[in-house]
Amino acid sequence: MAIELEQQPKPAAVALSRIAVSETHGEDSPYFAGWKAYDENPYDELTNPSGVIQMGLAENQVSFDLLEDFLERHSEAATWGKGATAGFRDNALFQDYHGLKSFRGAMASFMEQIRGGRARFDPDRVVLTAGATAANELLTFILANPGDALLIPTPYYPGFDRDLRWRTGVQIVPIHCHSSNNFQITESALHAAYDDAVSRGLTVRGVLITNPSNPLGATVQRAALEQILDFAVEKNIHLVSDEIYSGSTFSSAEFVSIAEVLESRGSRHVDRERVHIVYSLSKDLGLPGFRVGTIYSYNDAVVTTARRMSSFTLISSQTQHLLACMLSDEEFTANYVKTNRERLRRRYDAIIAGLRRAGIECLRGNAGLFCWMNLGPLLEETTKEGELALWNLIVRDVRLNISPGSSCHCSEPGWFRVCFANMSEATLDVALDRLHRFVDQYRRRTGSSQ
Amino acid sequence: MAIELEQQPKPAAVALSRIAVSETHGEDSPYFAGWKAYDENPYDELTNPSGVIQMGLAENQVSFDLLEDFLERHSEAATWGKGATAGFRDNALFQDYHGLKSFRGAMASFMEQIRGGRARFDPDRVVLTAGATAANELLTFILANPGDALLIPTPYYPGFDRDLRWRTGVQIVPIHCHSSNNFQITESALHAAYDDAVSRGLTVRGVLITNPSNPLGATVQRAALEQILDFAVEKNIHLVSDEIYSGSTFSSAEFVSIAEVLESRGSRHVDRERVHIVYSLSKDLGLPGFRVGTIYSYNDAVVTTARRMSSFTLISSQTQHLLACMLSDEEFTANYVKTNRERLRRRYDAIIAGLRRAGIECLRGNAGLFCWMNLGPLLEETTKEGELALWNLIVRDVRLNISPGSSCHCSEPGWFRVCFANMSEATLDVALDRLHRFVDQYRRRTGSSQ
Repeated sequence: MAIELEQQPKPAAVALSRIAVSETHGEDSPYFAGWKAYDENPYDELTNPSGVIQMGLAENQVSFDLLEDFLERHSEAATWGKGATAGFRDNALFQDYHGLKSFRGAMASFMEQIRGGRARFDPDRVVLTAGATAANELLTFILANPGDALLIPTPYYPGFDRDLRWRTGVQIVPIHCHSSNNFQITESALHAAYDDAVSRGLTVRGVLITNPSNPLGATVQRAALEQILDFAVEKNIHLVSDEIYSGSTFSSAEFVSIAEVLESRGSRHVDRERVHIVYSLSKDLGLPGFRVGTIYSYNDAVVTTARRMSSFTLISSQTQHLLACMLSDEEFTANYVKTNRERLRRRYDAIIAGLRRAGIECLRGNAGLFCWMNLGPLLEETTKEGELALWNLIVRDVRLNISPGSSCHCSEPGWFRVCFANMSEATLDVALDRLHRFVDQYRRRTGSSQ
Repeated sequence: MAIELEQQPKPAAVALSRIAVSETHGEDSPYFAGWKAYDENPYDELTNPSGVIQMGLAENQVSFDLLEDFLERHSEAATWGKGATAGFRDNALFQDYHGLKSFRGAMASFMEQIRGGRARFDPDRVVLTAGATAANELLTFILANPGDALLIPTPYYPGFDRDLRWRTGVQIVPIHCHSSNNFQITESALHAAYDDAVSRGLTVRGVLITNPSNPLGATVQRAALEQILDFAVEKNIHLVSDEIYSGSTFSSAEFVSIAEVLESRGSRHVDRERVHIVYSLSKDLGLPGFRVGTIYSYNDAVVTTARRMSSFTLISSQTQHLLACMLSDEEFTANYVKTNRERLRRRYDAIIAGLRRAGIECLRGNAGLFCWMNLGPLLEETTKEGELALWNLIVRDVRLNISPGSSCHCSEPGWFRVCFANMSEATLDVALDRLHRFVDQYRRRTGSSQ
């Protein structure tokens, strides 16, 4: 009897939902494991010169001085006009899910400016969200049912596995792209992905592209955009264009927004109703902490529904006020965008040159805060496992956190995303130097001739 | 043939998700219709004295001067320390979903202060979200599967129909409460709701209460809390306690948090693992525009999952910084909380006295930004339709936007929520005067003796 009492089962823990216990949050990927390696031993020039250098974080720190200078000259942006608190009351109470009119207007103008005035944006179609993470999830809730599919070209941003799938129950079906054509999206790849989804019994609801591409650091060509839009019309599905790096293209002329394609086609309803643009100030302005994202949809029902849904992810009115002041200053924004582009290009040129000295080639890039580096020739085994073995060496021994292509669902092993805008030039030099020495030794050891 | 061509069907519009086209967003309720009436013709003492007075908005404006005074004295809270921009860089980049450590700590202390130090909160269990709206939805995603049920006592906040159901697919089953015992939650009502859900084939995942109650404006008694927790343990389900009005109880002693009940039971695992508290600064500090909500869970897995999920609804780091400064100043917070309670009580006393002069009784309240007014004796027909007919008269003729009890799923017709803290005392007097005259005329016309 005593034994029976001891064996009395412990009461079952109170249950959580299937979403809560699923692995779809995606944090068990090497993409995040590399962050952990950095967090545990972060590089510092003076205090920890042998620490891990964070090259897995797409953060823009190269133009912060311009923002700081603006704030020095415009204290009213951080406070509320004359004196510290005038207007504070109205601001603190403002919770209308439309967002501050002044901020929506400034956001629309800024998006136009980034596109060199080649597309117009209506402030009434700007839906605000707390970051692009929320914007992408929110659009997915609106466009697809649980179990439906979105087609996404590979390689893609690892966070999509969480943002688009976790709470929505939507699936991602890859559009496989290849190095042979610089990972551009082709018509046959689109159809192959669609057919793959259908053969698995999935209803395809849309295509989602990032333009400029994360992780490729390159813009999508106009011809490819035309093809993708034609495809979306043919299949009567949506087209989401995530353009959060549009202001980080090194030259405005090299970026074509899906908005420009729509306008060049005479803004036909059949095109417009399916197109939705995601934007954010986290990358182009370097303000990820302020959590400012936006959905710009040409579909009225999507605008209305997204606005209602944005109740779950509104932007602090304090932050809207600051950014409305900043983005309304066209002289500031024009100078910022121009200078930021030039600085990013200089950084990009520096890292490409440094890698080339080490005998490493990258995809030709023209945008973003990272380059797409090909270490394929170094792989001992041309597989995902071979790629991760090399990645482990680089994180552990070279102490660089870079992101393996497999975490971006790249179809070909050996590619890595390397971020270059979240550190000083001096730190970038240290990183390049470490990599150079590692590759030299590695080649000597493995007898690789490349 | 020509006719056939003309009859060619227009191409089907691109489809949206079931969530996008559902009515669960809840905006078609009288609760929101009343807001529209106000928006179209807002009262202003000078420019529109015959406009609609907004008494449907639970907003706290009575203590704004204290916040303004703090900001006047502490400009570093709105900027970043010495000079306008020192620290701006770190702040703008901070996007860790744990939130600023200083802010989580200050939030935990503030929650303790509001509860008179009778409960302790661990900053590591504070999960930040962009408002309580997001916090409640996020918890629902974690606790329940689509099609599962949460039990909620009536009357309840109309927004729950959207927040808890729209994107989660979860259902709300009412726990019917009645005026006969001042709408307190009883054991038999809990069991009846549970049995009702089960008979409909639903899996019950938890009970969600608001304490102090919105719309009742009254705290939940300790005995009722004990009963609800026992019930949750018995059924092995969750208990969510939304305590966003806890600092708006007129006297600290009159509020018992579920946190205190847990501590008084010796923090047993069987109790703790199922209890989750929602809090926000929108009501007690009157900062809805800043979008600051929090989930405090005693369940480790819920804390971890909620933190990951908070990526979709992070708070601007700029706002976290300002509020960390403000809430860390214990002298300020102590004075604010005390003064705010006194002012709310004075407002409450004023509205109760004014209504009584008009022969109108309210539920005895002790918290919140509203009172729960009984116009049952005035109904020509004791039904939901009768209630809405009277409500229409009040919005249209008296030009007061109040919220009908039916929009809060109240089981008894004739109750209305009347907000009193979002206007000046002078405006409140105008509202009371209008209502008094209306009721007098209405009684004369209908021959009502009450």
